[in-house]
Amino acid sequence: MPSPGPLTIATADPAALADTGRGEDLHAFVRAILPLHRSITGDGLRATLHEIGERVPLAIREVPTGTRLLDWTAPMEWAVHEAWLAAPDGTRLVDLRRDGSLAVVQYSRPVRLTAPLRDLRRHLHTLPERPAAIPYRTAYAGDTWGLCLPDERLRDAKERFGEDASFEVVIESRLFDGALTYGECVLPGDSTDEILISAHACHPALANDNCSALAVATALAGEVMVRRRRRFTWRFLFAPATVGAVAWLAANRNPTVRAGLVLANLGDPGGLVYQRSRRGTLGQPALIDRAVSIALRGRVDVRPFEPTGYDERQFCSPGFDLPVGRLTRTPHGEYAEYHTSDDDLSLVTPAALAASLDAIRDIADVIEGDRRYRSLAPFGEPHLRPRGLSDAAPDDRAAMLWVLNLADGHHSLIDSAERSELPFHTIRRAAERLLEAGLLEPLD
Amino acid sequence: MPSPGPLTIATADPAALADTGRGEDLHAFVRAILPLHRSITGDGLRATLHEIGERVPLAIREVPTGTRLLDWTAPMEWAVHEAWLAAPDGTRLVDLRRDGSLAVVQYSRPVRLTAPLRDLRRHLHTLPERPAAIPYRTAYAGDTWGLCLPDERLRDAKERFGEDASFEVVIESRLFDGALTYGECVLPGDSTDEILISAHACHPALANDNCSALAVATALAGEVMVRRRRRFTWRFLFAPATVGAVAWLAANRNPTVRAGLVLANLGDPGGLVYQRSRRGTLGQPALIDRAVSIALRGRVDVRPFEPTGYDERQFCSPGFDLPVGRLTRTPHGEYAEYHTSDDDLSLVTPAALAASLDAIRDIADVIEGDRRYRSLAPFGEPHLRPRGLSDAAPDDRAAMLWVLNLADGHHSLIDSAERSELPFHTIRRAAERLLEAGLLEPLD
Amino acid sequence: MPSPGPLTIATADPAALADTGRGEDLHAFVRAILPLHRSITGDGLRATLHEIGERVPLAIREVPTGTRLLDWTAPMEWAVHEAWLAAPDGTRLVDLRRDGSLAVVQYSRPVRLTAPLRDLRRHLHTLPERPAAIPYRTAYAGDTWGLCLPDERLRDAKERFGEDASFEVVIESRLFDGALTYGECVLPGDSTDEILISAHACHPALANDNCSALAVATALAGEVMVRRRRRFTWRFLFAPATVGAVAWLAANRNPTVRAGLVLANLGDPGGLVYQRSRRGTLGQPALIDRAVSIALRGRVDVRPFEPTGYDERQFCSPGFDLPVGRLTRTPHGEYAEYHTSDDDLSLVTPAALAASLDAIRDIADVIEGDRRYRSLAPFGEPHLRPRGLSDAAPDDRAAMLWVLNLADGHHSLIDSAERSELPFHTIRRAAERLLEAGLLEPLD
Repeated sequence: MPSPGPLTIATADPAALADTGRGEDLHAFVRAILPLHRSITGDGLRATLHEIGERVPLAIREVPTGTRLLDWTAPMEWAVHEAWLAAPDGTRLVDLRRDGSLAVVQYSRPVRLTAPLRDLRRHLHTLPERPAAIPYRTAYAGDTWGLCLPDERLRDAKERFGEDASFEVVIESRLFDGALTYGECVLPGDSTDEILISAHACHPALANDNCSALAVATALAGEVMVRRRRRFTWRFLFAPATVGAVAWLAANRNPTVRAGLVLANLGDPGGLVYQRSRRGTLGQPALIDRAVSIALRGRVDVRPFEPTGYDERQFCSPGFDLPVGRLTRTPHGEYAEYHTSDDDLSLVTPAALAASLDAIRDIADVIEGDRRYRSLAPFGEPHLRPRGLSDAAPDDRAAMLWVLNLADGHHSLIDSAERSELPFHTIRRAAERLLEAGLLEPLD
Repeated sequence: MPSPGPLTIATADPAALADTGRGEDLHAFVRAILPLHRSITGDGLRATLHEIGERVPLAIREVPTGTRLLDWTAPMEWAVHEAWLAAPDGTRLVDLRRDGSLAVVQYSRPVRLTAPLRDLRRHLHTLPERPAAIPYRTAYAGDTWGLCLPDERLRDAKERFGEDASFEVVIESRLFDGALTYGECVLPGDSTDEILISAHACHPALANDNCSALAVATALAGEVMVRRRRRFTWRFLFAPATVGAVAWLAANRNPTVRAGLVLANLGDPGGLVYQRSRRGTLGQPALIDRAVSIALRGRVDVRPFEPTGYDERQFCSPGFDLPVGRLTRTPHGEYAEYHTSDDDLSLVTPAALAASLDAIRDIADVIEGDRRYRSLAPFGEPHLRPRGLSDAAPDDRAAMLWVLNLADGHHSLIDSAERSELPFHTIRRAAERLLEAGLLEPLD
Repeated sequence: MPSPGPLTIATADPAALADTGRGEDLHAFVRAILPLHRSITGDGLRATLHEIGERVPLAIREVPTGTRLLDWTAPMEWAVHEAWLAAPDGTRLVDLRRDGSLAVVQYSRPVRLTAPLRDLRRHLHTLPERPAAIPYRTAYAGDTWGLCLPDERLRDAKERFGEDASFEVVIESRLFDGALTYGECVLPGDSTDEILISAHACHPALANDNCSALAVATALAGEVMVRRRRRFTWRFLFAPATVGAVAWLAANRNPTVRAGLVLANLGDPGGLVYQRSRRGTLGQPALIDRAVSIALRGRVDVRPFEPTGYDERQFCSPGFDLPVGRLTRTPHGEYAEYHTSDDDLSLVTPAALAASLDAIRDIADVIEGDRRYRSLAPFGEPHLRPRGLSDAAPDDRAAMLWVLNLADGHHSLIDSAERSELPFHTIRRAAERLLEAGLLEPLD
């Protein structure tokens, strides 16, 4: 495991974090970072990482343009200052400053021209089936330009001025040798084995995809940071999608990831959806897969791995095959507002954000709390009464019997939770009582 | 395997046993043992074992109080001679001699006092939701006392006399150094490997739990005893729950149990319920699990192992992990009369008892009859006609083809029965014909 | 693998085969071979093989009567020239020449007698529940005789003439030392490992069972024959049921069969039914099982192996245990016309035959096209854009990501097709593009 490097600590005041978990705070954080002009590189991304770094200790990595990153290359940096389309009467049909960063196709080259609307059409992106919304478009190859606007505005202009009228386009953008930026928050634990939490940080003004997960992951990092003790080292990665994850992997060729989660779309009203890790799908369920199923029993839709989603594509590529799953509410492409300007602050609710954080905290508790034990009284049931354990409530008593029965060195608390269908915290509490009573020997 | 020790044979006249299997006989046996004042120790338990010993050869074990038994200790012996609660007018609200052994909390210490009803309340156990029934209560720690009575009688007395009226309580009981008693019937077979059938023998006047299983297990032992030949050694264990099973395990630290069944609640009108063995639940199904599924196909509800039931908790503790399942009709706690005086002779029917015996006999037939074979004509199908096997009925013919196809040394008759969905006896008969025809070589 | 021996090539003109796949051609072939007087030996079987040999290169094997064949013996050859039953007025109730080969019980000994109808009854086979149909009956032991006729004709004759009237029976048949005949078409491929396609060729005038599969298998052989390249050696076996398959196995004691299919009943209107191989049922699915499930996803009913069907009984006997499944439309015994004269040209449709051929061609494509690859860019996702692969249609793009993700040396294209639920040809095309782009290394 390469050293995580020096941390560029921001405030990270634990006291200030106490409320981070609350839905309103999460929503406020989404609101704060939503307007920043994010792309896979650039100052909007840096500003977003800065906001995260105000809340948790964050190391910022800058990877120079042109750096070889596995099969990829760190891209040119892109900046955009102006982008608009004006009708013959000067009305701006769309304007980056007014309509936000979706107005311009990401990585558009600069352009300044006046031309008949007819000739501009192939550079103007709209959603006829969603006429009031601006679509999200990218052109990372850097060899074209485009503007995105509501279909209804374009149709209206066409009716008013005709397709032969001259419209003015201005895009002031710049592609230059700069850097690819990502941030990571590493919280060392008893073990150098890591829990990896990753959220893509590059998408522009889309609230659910992925300001929601940035907010939830930041809040979780804040909570993990103030834990009295961490079993594992926790690493929170905030990076541009694909090439950012690739950049991290390029710098961490042998990551000791024990379990990982890619987080996305955690603020919409849909139910939780978990995509299992690659290795958990192809073979035996991995720790992360089992922890999610136990922690979110009855409140998650579990799906097999597919190589077509977010950055689990990178972490689960065959050369790495890390045990990384993905937790979302509604997955990419399955909600109508996906990749449009309707993925806004009204789609993302405080309640959904808070429930997402609760869910991930429960998963974290299982991962941190799972243990194997060996019973010190494995022959027959131990006599609970003389040890003061016989007055437990029925669930606690059942939990003790499960933990004792499975304390054979092969099964862990997760097995007891799976088979008993009792909550993990009930199982864990039972194990702690049995440990105190001298009936168990911890194995890990 | 330690020697089963000398048998204290009672009559055990096979001729007398011929009718034991009939439902009326089973019910008569339940009726005979129901009133005996059973507890986890004592003369009621001994009298119950004596009744069993009248029917099958039974070795009686007496384990002195204080003997270390794995994590347990053989308890003090308890005897009770009187137990009653009298109203101011001398009426006995409950009386051990009249109402039976449920009237007193098991292991009550002696008491003789007169006190306002109000002050006695915490020692008087009733079931408000089942006002005519007496609950079953125990206090094995031996440091308290209590009486159990119908809630309607207590309410009636309270109305008539008021809570300040003085009631008289008498419990004449004795805790003393004696012994824990259990009985076992061992029927040697060709192999010293054992089939263990266990039924708890300690519960007081409850017909289903567990006079029913005592009757069925005794009848099965009688049937197994008169078999011409036994493949395995059969051991029938009649012991007080928990500490009795622990005592047996303490005396048999390396039991060569090939398959086992804990029997309970076999007389109620509910369907059969089988709980798989621990090892059959955690890994591959064990012989007992497969035998039950085959023998009772379509007439049993199969459940995974849980460490919260009867004596399978001891046999399946991780240090032993014996392949022992549990067969009941309605499991503990799942019928309304459970652990009340309504678990009586009307809940238990001759038909249910007889059907339970039939079911266990079918299971025994599978266990005794399962074999692996190697085909002596494995290349292509053997030609059945010249061997006089071509005129079989369709099921018999299919059974022969299944047995031949799976006679590869790895699969047994249980596999053929599972995959063909034919009855085990059809499969077994086919194997016998093929064996006679020289087409099979037995492997075990 | 024993040499397949010299081929007795018939015409086998590829150009003539171009249309074989069409339903009408398949139906015409069924029509052509239906009236031939097939049995498990004899000239009707030879004529049928001749018809097949007109279309594909076919080696004809003649196994002399009395040859030891595993547990069997090559039977006497049987020929029948006349077979009829005449009423007192000379009317023929049934006549081989008029009613076809079902009229006589197969392997009837010769007979010529006149007797009261009452005395002939046990030799006259009818179907009271299907009064207009002639049943199919056999008596291979060769020690009896019988005629088969419509029940309504027999009842009518009984009413008209009475049971005491004398009827005349003539069967001119001959049992003699001859040969058991079968044919095989072997099409060598890059590997000597074989794909075995087998169809029983012995049943008399039954269109579905099995002229349908003879037609489809012949057409498939024609198609495989003209393929530019074959990965595996393809062997098409046309043999009498049971003893014919046994004869082939006796001559091929160590067949290197990589995958196999027994074909039968491929012309009726029922849906496709696949019975898995023995080894695929007892253990992990075999190549043939997976190929069928992938190729026929959503259009096949998959069942476990049973040793009670067609020649998979021989191929899957425990001494061979070849990976051979069985594809039918309605299986034997599950359609009302089964083994009666109603299994005729109206039951078998061009559309069903053509769809069966399509299905088997799809299976063949999966078997021939499956490959394992190793990714040459396994760390993270490879960058598709610089390789010109980023403009693929969504399914093609998903297919590329699946193939890359599973290109770990352990998984094959079948795995990608199974997990992605994309069509196999989409997966295969993706693999080809990735191979061209230098991203994959083929492993087999």
